[in-house]
Amino acid sequence: MKNSRYFNLLFAIFLILVLSADAAVAQSKATWIWYPGDFEVWLGNKMQNRRTERGTFLPPFWKFDSHYVLIDFHKDFDLSEAESAELFVEGQYSVKVDGKAIFGYPSKLEIPAGKHRVSLKVYNQGAVPAVYVKGKKVVSDSTWLVTYEDKEWIDQSGKASDQSGTTWLKAASWNFDSPSVPPSKYALPTQPQSALRSEKKGNGMLLDFGKETFGYVKIHGLRGRGNVGIYYGESKEEALSLDSGETLDRLDVNFNSKTDTTTTLTKAFRYVNVVLPAGLTMDSVSMLYEFAPVKDRGSFLCSDPEINKIYDVSKYTFHLNTREFFIDGIKRDRWVWSGDAYQSFLMNYYLLYDSPTVTRTLLALRGKDPVTSHINTIMDYTFYWFMGIKDYYLYTGDKTFIEQFYPRMKSLMDYCLSRTNNDGMLEGKAGDWVFIDWADGLSKKGELSFEQILFARSLEMMAESATMLNHTEEAANYGQLAKTLKVKIMTRYWNAGKHALVHSSVDGQQTANVTRYANMFGIFFNYFSPEQEQEVKKHVLLNDNIQKIKTPYMRFYELEALCAMGEQPYVLKEMKAYWGGMLKEGATSFWEEYDPAKKGTAHLAMYGRPFGKSLCHAWGASPLYLLGKYYLGVKPLSPAYAEWVCAPELGGLKWMQGKVPTNEGEIELYCSRTEIKIKSPVGTGILRIKSKTLPVVPGARVKITGAGLYEIAVEKGTEYKVKYQSI
Amino acid sequence: MKNSRYFNLLFAIFLILVLSADAAVAQSKATWIWYPGDFEVWLGNKMQNRRTERGTFLPPFWKFDSHYVLIDFHKDFDLSEAESAELFVEGQYSVKVDGKAIFGYPSKLEIPAGKHRVSLKVYNQGAVPAVYVKGKKVVSDSTWLVTYEDKEWIDQSGKASDQSGTTWLKAASWNFDSPSVPPSKYALPTQPQSALRSEKKGNGMLLDFGKETFGYVKIHGLRGRGNVGIYYGESKEEALSLDSGETLDRLDVNFNSKTDTTTTLTKAFRYVNVVLPAGLTMDSVSMLYEFAPVKDRGSFLCSDPEINKIYDVSKYTFHLNTREFFIDGIKRDRWVWSGDAYQSFLMNYYLLYDSPTVTRTLLALRGKDPVTSHINTIMDYTFYWFMGIKDYYLYTGDKTFIEQFYPRMKSLMDYCLSRTNNDGMLEGKAGDWVFIDWADGLSKKGELSFEQILFARSLEMMAESATMLNHTEEAANYGQLAKTLKVKIMTRYWNAGKHALVHSSVDGQQTANVTRYANMFGIFFNYFSPEQEQEVKKHVLLNDNIQKIKTPYMRFYELEALCAMGEQPYVLKEMKAYWGGMLKEGATSFWEEYDPAKKGTAHLAMYGRPFGKSLCHAWGASPLYLLGKYYLGVKPLSPAYAEWVCAPELGGLKWMQGKVPTNEGEIELYCSRTEIKIKSPVGTGILRIKSKTLPVVPGARVKITGAGLYEIAVEKGTEYKVKYQSI
Repeated sequence: MKNSRYFNLLFAIFLILVLSADAAVAQSKATWIWYPGDFEVWLGNKMQNRRTERGTFLPPFWKFDSHYVLIDFHKDFDLSEAESAELFVEGQYSVKVDGKAIFGYPSKLEIPAGKHRVSLKVYNQGAVPAVYVKGKKVVSDSTWLVTYEDKEWIDQSGKASDQSGTTWLKAASWNFDSPSVPPSKYALPTQPQSALRSEKKGNGMLLDFGKETFGYVKIHGLRGRGNVGIYYGESKEEALSLDSGETLDRLDVNFNSKTDTTTTLTKAFRYVNVVLPAGLTMDSVSMLYEFAPVKDRGSFLCSDPEINKIYDVSKYTFHLNTREFFIDGIKRDRWVWSGDAYQSFLMNYYLLYDSPTVTRTLLALRGKDPVTSHINTIMDYTFYWFMGIKDYYLYTGDKTFIEQFYPRMKSLMDYCLSRTNNDGMLEGKAGDWVFIDWADGLSKKGELSFEQILFARSLEMMAESATMLNHTEEAANYGQLAKTLKVKIMTRYWNAGKHALVHSSVDGQQTANVTRYANMFGIFFNYFSPEQEQEVKKHVLLNDNIQKIKTPYMRFYELEALCAMGEQPYVLKEMKAYWGGMLKEGATSFWEEYDPAKKGTAHLAMYGRPFGKSLCHAWGASPLYLLGKYYLGVKPLSPAYAEWVCAPELGGLKWMQGKVPTNEGEIELYCSRTEIKIKSPVGTGILRIKSKTLPVVPGARVKITGAGLYEIAVEKGTEYKVKYQSI
Repeated sequence: MKNSRYFNLLFAIFLILVLSADAAVAQSKATWIWYPGDFEVWLGNKMQNRRTERGTFLPPFWKFDSHYVLIDFHKDFDLSEAESAELFVEGQYSVKVDGKAIFGYPSKLEIPAGKHRVSLKVYNQGAVPAVYVKGKKVVSDSTWLVTYEDKEWIDQSGKASDQSGTTWLKAASWNFDSPSVPPSKYALPTQPQSALRSEKKGNGMLLDFGKETFGYVKIHGLRGRGNVGIYYGESKEEALSLDSGETLDRLDVNFNSKTDTTTTLTKAFRYVNVVLPAGLTMDSVSMLYEFAPVKDRGSFLCSDPEINKIYDVSKYTFHLNTREFFIDGIKRDRWVWSGDAYQSFLMNYYLLYDSPTVTRTLLALRGKDPVTSHINTIMDYTFYWFMGIKDYYLYTGDKTFIEQFYPRMKSLMDYCLSRTNNDGMLEGKAGDWVFIDWADGLSKKGELSFEQILFARSLEMMAESATMLNHTEEAANYGQLAKTLKVKIMTRYWNAGKHALVHSSVDGQQTANVTRYANMFGIFFNYFSPEQEQEVKKHVLLNDNIQKIKTPYMRFYELEALCAMGEQPYVLKEMKAYWGGMLKEGATSFWEEYDPAKKGTAHLAMYGRPFGKSLCHAWGASPLYLLGKYYLGVKPLSPAYAEWVCAPELGGLKWMQGKVPTNEGEIELYCSRTEIKIKSPVGTGILRIKSKTLPVVPGARVKITGAGLYEIAVEKGTEYKVKYQSI
């Protein structure tokens, strides 16, 4: 027995050792590292300079920044035994151990036992300086420190500077865990796919891939000499229009024998029209579907098949637009637009919960200092950037991001503040694009209530971030600015007779027009009193005399505002009418703009061009967000779902079920009119329900919070089953 | 006769046509163009990341910036006939005529007759976006306009933005006039050279190239397998020291037959020690001398052969350090250091008058916004940058440079102003390197008088630039700051008992130490009263009890201050002792530091390393400047020599003659004790002389300005011969 005890003790020690070793191994997974934000800026440049229009390169019209070309990486190690580490570096580099340089460009490094500092300094003009170090304990990961100016000078006697003026950040990394795939080789995966239908046209062929898709076109068995025309169409009409389609490729070939050839730039299409002149023949055409390898973690299914279809097409639309970054649409721009991305962030929290795509997008949008214009040149888009960070922190609790990029937040806000007028408000100045939405005759003159309301929200966000980082003075300053601006917004724009905020003021005077924009944001920003909310709901949101919204982009916020006021039954009908309307028009992904009043090919036109409209636009996928946040009703109350709420609303559905992803797993919900099942892996939740009867929940206390209103605490790991009677 | 008259008339018309055509051709010389400052920043990165130390890459320790990666180029043309232009572009690009895109990446462009806008938009991450357009009138040159954010968006209807918020600059260009040599291919020329002496050592060889030189080493007839060691030495001792030389190369080779092989990175050396292990043999070793193709336009020759030798070795030293940029020294750093460059600028005005090297150096030093540290991290070096622009404008009158880069001047000054203390003075903060000079025990604590005096000068320069550009408010602000600071400097640091400015103040209190630095700058900045000047001269400059200067760097200013007070005879002796002293030590180029008290190989050591000292340092060449400005005595009084003065000072020489380059040619001077000859191609000059007798100048009026003081106006194009009696 004694032996056995010893054995147990030994086993326990063994376990501890194994577990610590495991922990050490887990800690010590080598990965490529770089200066925070630099890969994102570099990739943003690459990605956004891939747009073509009818075969001509069409780059963006704002400033693009670059990575820092010279970076110092280091980490201090305490090794119990000497070890050898492999080195992989993107760029020209030097390596030092304890400040002593190793000769040349070594691929291996010997580090003796004891305390040692390993440093690398890397120069790379064309791509991001990055390193991958793989030893036993000496491995590159985000615990390394980096700087773009190490100030490591020496004095006359050879003594090194104290470097106390150097700012070191924690290195950035992602999933580049293989030495042979460094950041500069980043590419999305592809998959071969066949057309659903094809139709011969002369030597050429018209292909229908059955639904909107994205990738490279591959021509099989091409033979002969001449110029192959490849005309892409989101619609059949576009693919057949040789002179007005938005995108095309031309391949000059000279093949003596049958050859397979693939296009070099990805395109969006459902139809591909391959036009071959006499002298050229081919066997067939297929595609390589390019996609971001992200996983669905959220889900939604309900008793209404049309809503399920809308959810599925939203999901597909969202996936197509989730690539290196969250982009606007796959056919035309393929750029990172802050207003579009902001909505994608929100949808992401209910489908993918993929933080790297969020931060990558935020960083590519922001670029670097100095700020010389609004983000994407658009005033409102600057504010969505701040708002995007606010949400990102709430949903994920990633404080490091705020710490590392607070200086860029601050300098962008400084830019805004440097452009305010005497009233502390922002009007469009020369070079500012004041966007709001694509809508006919929308005035951009003077100070728009919509812009000020986003500005106020951004100032609040800056105050919160400054508070979090203990920048007390800045927090107070931003807080005061936000407060003052909010008061000014209400006194300047609220019109009691119109029961709403008016659209703008010119020369300090209210104008007469009321639009939906500022009013709907005021609702879910909680800027209104309960009375004002009701007035706005009646006189603006549900008032057909107020100019209607024609883009899914602003419908997103319009429906969100209505949901926030409990109008889920109305919104469900709107969703069915609007997104269902696109489906009835044959949509296989959701569009940039949809005006139910238009007919036939008129749906395809925009920007004065017959096929100018994008038929696959990220902002078309907003049901993902609405169904997750306002029907399943799940949202965090504090960062990373430490506290959260679930307030399910069937909105007329018989039942629904779904998952909402969090940093710890998914919150799962089933809800019918009489039964709710919920289980959560994270934080402390509150299930907030309305019931005609006192809900029955085995193993939980039901708190009565009002007439027919109940709350049940949801502890993580326990499944709750609630019997109730939906009101 | 009538016929003849008509003929003359026709001939005149013919001439006019030919000349206008010539003028048109001259205007229309195609050259590569880019965004101002971008080539310089890009080349600066490339050049400064070439340093190695004993075979290991040794990059700088400050921030490096990048070119703008996406640039819009355009120009409006009015063509009398249609024309075709060839296109060459560095980067991915689009071309438009009147806003209409041309398909793909065309190499030819057709432009119809009439008024048309030609635009190109170029993306390039790794090198500078640049274009070369060659038609008849449609050619790329510095009359094109460029921007890094064109804000060329379109609205919903397809209407373009007004772009009034876009800042367009005139394109930059240099001498890239061939389409096949774009900016990214820039390289200095090389020339084969042989060693003066060689000595076999085993299989290897020690070579002596006879004097300091720079380039690639070429090994002829190398055969066998193994590792070739190439040890460079500015001294024989260094080349022979396999373990302590500053630079070396190792080549791993495996040649079955005799092969010539050349090193891939240039090095500085006089001696090369090629060490071959057994199994390797070679025939001989030569070099490829690399140099900047700049021409000497200034000259100096006098009755003292030692001074002539000093001038020649200075010239050679200066040439070796004049490369892609004015660098510090050729062996070790090979970086662009602002304090070193500032002196090179001044020497340049008296030897090369090469503005592109000046502006390239200024722009590489400055980099881009945001400013995150002082230039080269050194506080004083920030100020030299401002002072360098002040001189550049005075010597060349290049207002465009000030116009284009005033924003970078302003943001750098903003950085300084953001770091002043409550007294409006600058102290070293964490991360600031307060340099002044290499000197033992120099205190850097508190507010140094030297730093404040350079700061005041920089503020004056900002005020002048702002005035020139009509930024009235900024001019007044900088002017006031300069004035206030100058008053503070005198009250804070002037010590009547010590007859000098003291070195520093700590906690607002004067310290006791007096050093030369602030005092000598105060002289040639004219910050002192005439009485103070004399006090400083006696109690500081000519006082052996004040710590002596050991670098040619600060000797430059020390001797300049003495010259400015008419101490040319004294300075001539100092020059002979100091620079002559280096020559006596066998110098073939002038050194980074020279302490006459040291002996033998002690001269080679610095930074705690036996061969750490650079034996070819640009700042060693200052006699070029002193002899031109204070002996020939020529300097501009207003920009580009519109007004100038020549106040020759023999300083004990029997005679001297020389040339000083200007934007219009060279001012030529011969001066003996009884005769002066002067001729100028530029502006209005004043010959200012001291004479025991009334000078006799045929064809000119002599103005008496004091006892024995005379002035003669020098009109351009006329040679003046003056008979006088030197005092």
